[in-house]
Amino acid sequence: MNIGLDMMGGDFAPLEAVKGLQLYLSDHRSATSLYCIGDETVVQPLLAEHQVTSPDLHLIHAPEVIGYHEHPTKALKEKQRSSIAIGFHLLATGKIDAFISAGNTGAMLVGAMYSIKPIDGVQRPTISTIVPKLDGSTGLLLDVGLNADCKPELLNQFAVLGSLYAQHILNIEDPKVGLMNVGEEEGKGNLLAQAAYPLLKENKLIHFTGNIEGRDIFTGKADVMVCDGFTGNIILKMAESIYDIAHKRKLDQDEYFSRFHYENYGGTPVLGVAKPVIIGHGISNAKAFKNMIAVAEKMIQSDLCGKMLESFK
Amino acid sequence: MNIGLDMMGGDFAPLEAVKGLQLYLSDHRSATSLYCIGDETVVQPLLAEHQVTSPDLHLIHAPEVIGYHEHPTKALKEKQRSSIAIGFHLLATGKIDAFISAGNTGAMLVGAMYSIKPIDGVQRPTISTIVPKLDGSTGLLLDVGLNADCKPELLNQFAVLGSLYAQHILNIEDPKVGLMNVGEEEGKGNLLAQAAYPLLKENKLIHFTGNIEGRDIFTGKADVMVCDGFTGNIILKMAESIYDIAHKRKLDQDEYFSRFHYENYGGTPVLGVAKPVIIGHGISNAKAFKNMIAVAEKMIQSDLCGKMLESFK
Repeated sequence: MNIGLDMMGGDFAPLEAVKGLQLYLSDHRSATSLYCIGDETVVQPLLAEHQVTSPDLHLIHAPEVIGYHEHPTKALKEKQRSSIAIGFHLLATGKIDAFISAGNTGAMLVGAMYSIKPIDGVQRPTISTIVPKLDGSTGLLLDVGLNADCKPELLNQFAVLGSLYAQHILNIEDPKVGLMNVGEEEGKGNLLAQAAYPLLKENKLIHFTGNIEGRDIFTGKADVMVCDGFTGNIILKMAESIYDIAHKRKLDQDEYFSRFHYENYGGTPVLGVAKPVIIGHGISNAKAFKNMIAVAEKMIQSDLCGKMLESFK
Repeated sequence: MNIGLDMMGGDFAPLEAVKGLQLYLSDHRSATSLYCIGDETVVQPLLAEHQVTSPDLHLIHAPEVIGYHEHPTKALKEKQRSSIAIGFHLLATGKIDAFISAGNTGAMLVGAMYSIKPIDGVQRPTISTIVPKLDGSTGLLLDVGLNADCKPELLNQFAVLGSLYAQHILNIEDPKVGLMNVGEEEGKGNLLAQAAYPLLKENKLIHFTGNIEGRDIFTGKADVMVCDGFTGNIILKMAESIYDIAHKRKLDQDEYFSRFHYENYGGTPVLGVAKPVIIGHGISNAKAFKNMIAVAEKMIQSDLCGKMLESFK
């Protein structure tokens, strides 16, 4: 399989991307070809300096970079030789099977939606976050910000997409789906949650177990937790800030809180688009890059996008 | 001033209510008369046993109790001799100036809305929670669950009610108001947040400082944080669960996390109703009861409800 990695995306790119490759190559003996997309005048010397060499490594020259504050659509259109534009071109044309970048999030989303396109039947693609659970397991929360306002059917679709991700990438057999809500009983909640509940209950593609509350996010009550992107984004950023607080107060050595560190999960896949696209955190470090490559491999190997396509037929 | 305390509400009532009175009386030398509402055959012996005596203490016999799982409206109507029904009767008729209970939350809300009534101009009363900030200050988040679906104007009203509470009860001069959102810039967010922003910006009664995100909840960026009750309830319960996790992992000795303990704040005042009503946590202990009495005193002394009435004229 062929994975494309944007070498120019992220606050510490290309250095951390290079180190991520180094970590990945030292750990893995797989048949994956890695296409490193970036400015070869910068990337080549760094790869040499860190002795990152492998017959599986291919450098694709991209002389332009899309900055963090550029307008996504405009930048993608005007900078066709940027690493992100080239990455999506390679993905769309089948030269690579997955594309990873820690660059401009907006440009990554625009690329995923318009170069790759949603899977037939998926109304809106979604982004998710991994949630470390107290029982040692790992949950998935979605949407975490792509869709601030949602119709009930969207939440129902997120449940399907999230369940497939949980099953095939997180290795959770028969993942339990919970609806983020303000009470346990059916009928509780805002209009959206009230209307989404019966759809989830009737959905034969998922294992819906009912409402979950704010206090259940870190427990094993549900593996896949669905909500609108407004609620999910606030939960995500609040959880991130709690890790930061624990870190500042030197409590992040705690076994549980340490699992909140973003680098363990690497990035956020865009779910519901036809091919694997992974967006990295701006502060991605080597470990995060390595883990994103591993997730991309798993998404390709399990044919996650194909399974999503099947579910929405 | 006269404060009514439901002796029968809370998982550990009446014992913890009695101990709370004991704590309060040992700390305070005020001119407050306390009306203890409950079953005298149970409360009287406990007060005697714990030597809780004071000329300022008055026992009001209420032979009935509204249980946790009773239907609020039905129970209030049928159990007129319950401690909650009697408490609201005393408050409505001016025999007491504030009413506190850790009993059936629904019954407390129904009593506050129908026996006491919203302040003229207040579209919907609201409940809030105290948020300990990293800089040592204290913030207020509202609504935390009374109004799951909100119109933009409601958020604007919560901002006024919350600002007055922050000013007069939390002693924050010129409290900064933030709108819970998913991005910093104006125009970000779901339809509700987008529509509420300009209302908050134009509101001369408050000091609006813009959007805040999930990561800002525990920082000093805003003192009063407004959102719909769905979002707020999830934030509240998630924050409570984080305290529980810290506690289980023995990290709650940490100076910051220890401030999350509910007992420090005692209860949740219903804001926007004509008289002070405070709802306690079901697990209220002695310290929580003591603190609720102190908050009620402050609400009466500052004439908070009068100031709210003024603002909505």
